[in-house]
Amino acid sequence: MGNEFRLSDLADRIGARLVGDGEKIVAGIAPIEEAGPGQVTFLANPKYARIAKDSKATAIIAKEVVPGAQPVFLLSDNPYFAFACAVEAFHPPALHVPGISGQAVVDPSARLGRDVAVAPFVVIQEGAEVGDRTVLFPGVYVGKGVSIGPDCLAYPHVVLYHDVKVGSRVILHAGCVIGSDGFGFAPTPEGFRKIPQVGTVEIEDDVEIGANTTIDRATLGVTRVCRGAKLDNLVQVGHNVVIGSDTVIAAQVGISGSTRIGSRIMIGGQAGLADHLEVEDGIMLGGKCGVTNSLRASESRVWSGWPAMPHSIWLRSATLLPKIPELFRRVKRLEEGKKPKGEK
Amino acid sequence: MGNEFRLSDLADRIGARLVGDGEKIVAGIAPIEEAGPGQVTFLANPKYARIAKDSKATAIIAKEVVPGAQPVFLLSDNPYFAFACAVEAFHPPALHVPGISGQAVVDPSARLGRDVAVAPFVVIQEGAEVGDRTVLFPGVYVGKGVSIGPDCLAYPHVVLYHDVKVGSRVILHAGCVIGSDGFGFAPTPEGFRKIPQVGTVEIEDDVEIGANTTIDRATLGVTRVCRGAKLDNLVQVGHNVVIGSDTVIAAQVGISGSTRIGSRIMIGGQAGLADHLEVEDGIMLGGKCGVTNSLRASESRVWSGWPAMPHSIWLRSATLLPKIPELFRRVKRLEEGKKPKGEK
Amino acid sequence: MGNEFRLSDLADRIGARLVGDGEKIVAGIAPIEEAGPGQVTFLANPKYARIAKDSKATAIIAKEVVPGAQPVFLLSDNPYFAFACAVEAFHPPALHVPGISGQAVVDPSARLGRDVAVAPFVVIQEGAEVGDRTVLFPGVYVGKGVSIGPDCLAYPHVVLYHDVKVGSRVILHAGCVIGSDGFGFAPTPEGFRKIPQVGTVEIEDDVEIGANTTIDRATLGVTRVCRGAKLDNLVQVGHNVVIGSDTVIAAQVGISGSTRIGSRIMIGGQAGLADHLEVEDGIMLGGKCGVTNSLRASESRVWSGWPAMPHSIWLRSATLLPKIPELFRRVKRLEEGKKPKGEK
Repeated sequence: MGNEFRLSDLADRIGARLVGDGEKIVAGIAPIEEAGPGQVTFLANPKYARIAKDSKATAIIAKEVVPGAQPVFLLSDNPYFAFACAVEAFHPPALHVPGISGQAVVDPSARLGRDVAVAPFVVIQEGAEVGDRTVLFPGVYVGKGVSIGPDCLAYPHVVLYHDVKVGSRVILHAGCVIGSDGFGFAPTPEGFRKIPQVGTVEIEDDVEIGANTTIDRATLGVTRVCRGAKLDNLVQVGHNVVIGSDTVIAAQVGISGSTRIGSRIMIGGQAGLADHLEVEDGIMLGGKCGVTNSLRASESRVWSGWPAMPHSIWLRSATLLPKIPELFRRVKRLEEGKKPKGEK
Repeated sequence: MGNEFRLSDLADRIGARLVGDGEKIVAGIAPIEEAGPGQVTFLANPKYARIAKDSKATAIIAKEVVPGAQPVFLLSDNPYFAFACAVEAFHPPALHVPGISGQAVVDPSARLGRDVAVAPFVVIQEGAEVGDRTVLFPGVYVGKGVSIGPDCLAYPHVVLYHDVKVGSRVILHAGCVIGSDGFGFAPTPEGFRKIPQVGTVEIEDDVEIGANTTIDRATLGVTRVCRGAKLDNLVQVGHNVVIGSDTVIAAQVGISGSTRIGSRIMIGGQAGLADHLEVEDGIMLGGKCGVTNSLRASESRVWSGWPAMPHSIWLRSATLLPKIPELFRRVKRLEEGKKPKGEK
Repeated sequence: MGNEFRLSDLADRIGARLVGDGEKIVAGIAPIEEAGPGQVTFLANPKYARIAKDSKATAIIAKEVVPGAQPVFLLSDNPYFAFACAVEAFHPPALHVPGISGQAVVDPSARLGRDVAVAPFVVIQEGAEVGDRTVLFPGVYVGKGVSIGPDCLAYPHVVLYHDVKVGSRVILHAGCVIGSDGFGFAPTPEGFRKIPQVGTVEIEDDVEIGANTTIDRATLGVTRVCRGAKLDNLVQVGHNVVIGSDTVIAAQVGISGSTRIGSRIMIGGQAGLADHLEVEDGIMLGGKCGVTNSLRASESRVWSGWPAMPHSIWLRSATLLPKIPELFRRVKRLEEGKKPKGEK
């Protein structure tokens, strides 16, 4: 990409402490297995220290020096943060040329901010608002009365149903759908009658939503994703759910209607949460876990398994699952008055 | 939205029995935690009776009067149905202006009914049919030979592959894909050879399909979603599956090829069903359950767990899972001839 | 479709051995339950031999003759392959008329091969390349610097983010998203900071990707789907994952970041794999299984369950899960010094 840095300058820029020759020049960043001379790399996990030792990279961002390694070290107490800054230094965000494509359809009543970029085949309906510098990629659909804040990115084919609200600096990946109808039907003798879903969705500032993720509008009221939350791809968020600030949700997680997820929660991939639950701030949920009750941080910070249990218990139970058949045999021997196997 | 009702009129309209002052006026509907004066609300679950008691709402739709609560009651044996009617009274469905956008591409051989609404960037291919009053949002793709009945709604970017059939009053949420190829490959020494998927999909009347749900066409024959079935978001329906009438399928469920789901079945979120199974009418499947055998209603009406077992057994087994490590210890003590822990 | 074949000619064409009257004519192919006179059908599973016996079809593709069945047999050691060839004989692939729609937006710097078909509302960005005879359905988005090889099919609304590479003869089903940002954030006291995802995705030759599947770009380096791999619908592939050649992944599977899946692997629906794992060539993973450790083929070829264990162990453990409550009762009786239930 053409960007080069003297290591001492790069260290300043990413807030790292230099250990080694600061005059060396680096012109790129690469994974630790691949980085060569003239490149900087990143040691995420001390487990890979051996790879660092053999690395031909010019510099390594890490938490601590790896003894015996040749490269210069750029040390940080938060090496992930330093790494993020370094990647950005070499790969500044793409510039989007502002302007409204002649092949977009923008309702005359829509209000667009300054320096907005509206690509071909975007549709912006009646009464919608789009904030300054927001970029709408091809095929984005902005429904009636939608409001999007400034500095957002909506990748191709994002769909915002009517009246959805999106804050500032929100990133919406391709194909995500915000504001589809919540799943609610009243049983009748003639089959199910749809309960109209007349609430909405609010996505607060600094949220990122993954590709093909779906977030349903509330039946009444609001489905809310709070400030700084990050949702991965193919996540399902049911009607009237609340997701707290700075919560991180991995791919294919499903959250059923009216469940309230606290702040600074981490949810592993494919986890599922039943409806009308509460999960307290700061809890971690393991991948694939199945949550059928509200969870309190005082009982356990980390939960796993199905049904979800404190992680330490899950680990022990899970290890024993393959030994269940053996346990049945051992109990049978006891019942028959025989000695345990292996004893005489 | 401007609609107001005298409570006695609203009671008539939603088929509810009035307990209290029918002359009061309501001008909106809100969730029970939020409803205030001039609003009607809904008590879904007797568990929340306490909230009803403190409610400042003017009226509550419920199954029974909550003793000590101030609001007027609108009682119904089917309060969900009464609620659905009330929401509709305050929020009549959006009107869609009929007409065919000049920015849509409609093949001259396609037949469009009366009062159809075709938005910009819709594509309707050769020989397709669209019924009266059906609304196609921006970016909907209607393949060659597709037939859609009257009074359907297809939200943005719905994709109907060639020859798919859709009945009347069907709702297709954004990004759902109907008629993609079934997943079939013949192994050969040179790798997999695609088995052409030359069947189709039929979606019967009154079906609703969630956002980003995928329904594959049959290899030969038909993948069928019968009358009144409701599928939530991100559901996967494999080739040659049959889903019976009035069956309700929550988000992220996966149904493998050729499995036949009966009528009036309810499937919880993230459940998975193997291929070539039969699930009998009226069965309920718990969230996340894994079905590897055909299920009979005579054996159990409700199934849960993985592998799926009668729900009552699953409940007991699931409760004991965290105690498995303890059971191993207890058996060890028995084998060693020791007394159970706690005994002297 | 008008195609008819004499059975002896069809046998030649699909590489099958004829048992019966080769002069008979067939004009279509149908499922075994439905096939009638003048049609050929396919006996996939000897379990259905009974149906074959009663079949009114003119001919059956199978591995072996079903004694007592009337139809002519077309025998093959690889009946799935013979079936694939037969379906293709009756349903030759659709022809796509080459040409670039006036309603597509193609950057002048993009290079399009010969006989490319570019539908309305396609966007092809700066510097992108599209190979000969490749077909882009309506709404396909081809980002800046993307390269697609010859003879590919991209169904409606496929999204290829910038710089993604796609090989030859690749099929991309509707709504799949290739190259969205990997899920990476550095925690800071002010919330999460996005780690820019500056790697890419490479899809090699003869790959098929299902509808609404998502494949994230690498943080640095490449997320790779190797030659001949087949991914079903709604699959999630995390950043820096490698999927080996001829690997088959069923719907709703999730693969976390940096995991390496070998060649000729089969993964059942809804399986989940944690990050930074290795799964060796030729392994089979059962549906819904949860993989939290690297798996070696020498330990087991087939793995199932959660946590994943050798399939034979899983089968036995799974059978016993519903009996866990009974086991607890039996151990209690032993502890109490009572005889097992049923004994006197």
